[in-house]
Amino acid sequence: MTESSTLSNTYNETKYQLTTHGKRNIQVLKEAFRKMEGDLDSDIYGKGKVIEEFQEKMAALLGKDQAVFFPSGTMAEQIALRIWCDDKGLQKVAYHPLSHLEIHEEDGLKELHKIETVLLADKSRVIELEDVEGMGEDIACLLLELPQREIGGQLPSYETLERISKYCSDKGIKLHLEGARLLEVLPYYQKSAAEICTLFDSVYISLYKGIGGIAGAILAGDRHFTEKSKVWKRRYGGDLISLYPYILSADYYYEMRSHKMQQYYEDAQELASHFNAVHTITTVPSIPVSNMFHVHFPYSLVQMEKVLIEVHLQTGIGITGNLKEIDSNSCYFEASLGDLYRKIPKDSLANAFEYLDDRMKSLLN
Amino acid sequence: MTESSTLSNTYNETKYQLTTHGKRNIQVLKEAFRKMEGDLDSDIYGKGKVIEEFQEKMAALLGKDQAVFFPSGTMAEQIALRIWCDDKGLQKVAYHPLSHLEIHEEDGLKELHKIETVLLADKSRVIELEDVEGMGEDIACLLLELPQREIGGQLPSYETLERISKYCSDKGIKLHLEGARLLEVLPYYQKSAAEICTLFDSVYISLYKGIGGIAGAILAGDRHFTEKSKVWKRRYGGDLISLYPYILSADYYYEMRSHKMQQYYEDAQELASHFNAVHTITTVPSIPVSNMFHVHFPYSLVQMEKVLIEVHLQTGIGITGNLKEIDSNSCYFEASLGDLYRKIPKDSLANAFEYLDDRMKSLLN
Repeated sequence: MTESSTLSNTYNETKYQLTTHGKRNIQVLKEAFRKMEGDLDSDIYGKGKVIEEFQEKMAALLGKDQAVFFPSGTMAEQIALRIWCDDKGLQKVAYHPLSHLEIHEEDGLKELHKIETVLLADKSRVIELEDVEGMGEDIACLLLELPQREIGGQLPSYETLERISKYCSDKGIKLHLEGARLLEVLPYYQKSAAEICTLFDSVYISLYKGIGGIAGAILAGDRHFTEKSKVWKRRYGGDLISLYPYILSADYYYEMRSHKMQQYYEDAQELASHFNAVHTITTVPSIPVSNMFHVHFPYSLVQMEKVLIEVHLQTGIGITGNLKEIDSNSCYFEASLGDLYRKIPKDSLANAFEYLDDRMKSLLN
Repeated sequence: MTESSTLSNTYNETKYQLTTHGKRNIQVLKEAFRKMEGDLDSDIYGKGKVIEEFQEKMAALLGKDQAVFFPSGTMAEQIALRIWCDDKGLQKVAYHPLSHLEIHEEDGLKELHKIETVLLADKSRVIELEDVEGMGEDIACLLLELPQREIGGQLPSYETLERISKYCSDKGIKLHLEGARLLEVLPYYQKSAAEICTLFDSVYISLYKGIGGIAGAILAGDRHFTEKSKVWKRRYGGDLISLYPYILSADYYYEMRSHKMQQYYEDAQELASHFNAVHTITTVPSIPVSNMFHVHFPYSLVQMEKVLIEVHLQTGIGITGNLKEIDSNSCYFEASLGDLYRKIPKDSLANAFEYLDDRMKSLLN
């Protein structure tokens, strides 16, 4: 094995990959713009046909008055929470301990807004009604993430969502939806995006997860809320002179993929069953409720990288390029199903899992 | 004249335009990416060849340890000031009363950082050494904008810059360069960007002014400073998963135009002299010191729109699409010279100014 036989390199060189829509390279942009007429005017500081039409389309999808395009979900969600805090005159919000805001944003919410946070539920499960009832009423906004990404994309029941929504409404607590992957959970709930969003005062969706755009996010709510969000977007430096590279590509891939979420969901269930049939490998959740799940291995990162590199080199099927350590005896990776799964010939897929199973069995000895 | 004969519409339909590099449409993106290979990997959250190489190139240009790509100058500059304030443990900065931070950012600096501001000089002139000496020593950072955009792009003398730099250094006050249009003033100062930047602790440049990219900014300084700026970029939600649409187009147009700043500067001087030769029209500054200047008319916005629409329709030369009111008897527009000026046939240009002069003379009666 040479220096360059890293997990990431061998993954990138496989012929087929289990997950995602494909590589994040500039072809994603080139394809989206290929057939567009060059004389289409840029959006200018949040105005113009390109941004306004897409925002209207997203508002209709989500069943809200208005939708605002943001460069990132990080920016959009901090702003949403700040607006609800200011509305109530109380700088305190509640969310899951593995929320993006808590673990991936360098404490932006606290550093920029001095907003206090209450963490609900423990790290291994989703927020339930009891957690919400127990958090106290002294909260401006509760943020719920659907699906809860850091635990494999788990979901509360729809009935729980309805109860949490009613509780918050009764208590004057705003409910915000961290719906980065909202479209991806519609097949499980068997609801439209707008139906789910009626339970929430504000909602964020990402444009580069299941949809597979380049970057960008939508924040939606009533006009009172979205107009304030535009002021904050300007304050953050997110009101770029031109956002069209993200908007037009988001729209292009939305049209290509928004109707394929059922397929990704079913494929995730099938793929998870393949993993669960392999010795010692388990998935979280065991049966996926969206296009995503986590794959857990009861071995060290170093051991598993060796195994997966072999799978890549021997079968030509890419399992993952990015394994994460849990502790010295376990590791996992995140699987997000996309367009690539159905491009894999069935016999190649079967062969790869057979090879993987052999290798995992050999670790038992 | 029909409903659609607005200043903006008639400007957009002229055959030639005096200023800018051309329309802000998606062709700007398409052209930049046309010859790029699709398999070039995206940057990922601030890492990867695409972003790192461009940042290194910009660091070398500016003579600083490191440069960081930001989605916007608004974000980059608030962060720069916050870092210098934290460093000194003093939340107080000084800048010009017409600074972008003061008039175009919905008070982001104050709302997000609680930073107090001291305004130096009056609105009609640039900051001089006396203003700086008079501001007190109780300041974490002084921001100087070169050129001062809102007053037509005026500049202090280079000697003044050197003296302000020495004063700040002696007093332990950080000096930040708002250099959105830094490249555009190099021909006037007859200095390299790096030479000017040695006078400053940190510097921001824009990638869509003279360079003509789509959006984006560079923030540069020593490693201590830039590493902190990356943490704040993450906090702001500016650390997008992919910034390549802006980075690669910025690089493309940087290569195309960074060596043409002398041309734009000379053209600005020539164009300003044409305006100053017209009855009652004046430019600020009277002799431009960069590629930009303001054109002032001693008539109401409504009167001047009528005149300029006629010029557009009769001569086919676009003067401006965006006139701004000063008061009921005066208005102005901003002229930024770019690639379009030299595409205008000399006789067409002469004809347009002759026509404009006739119309301005007729207003005197």
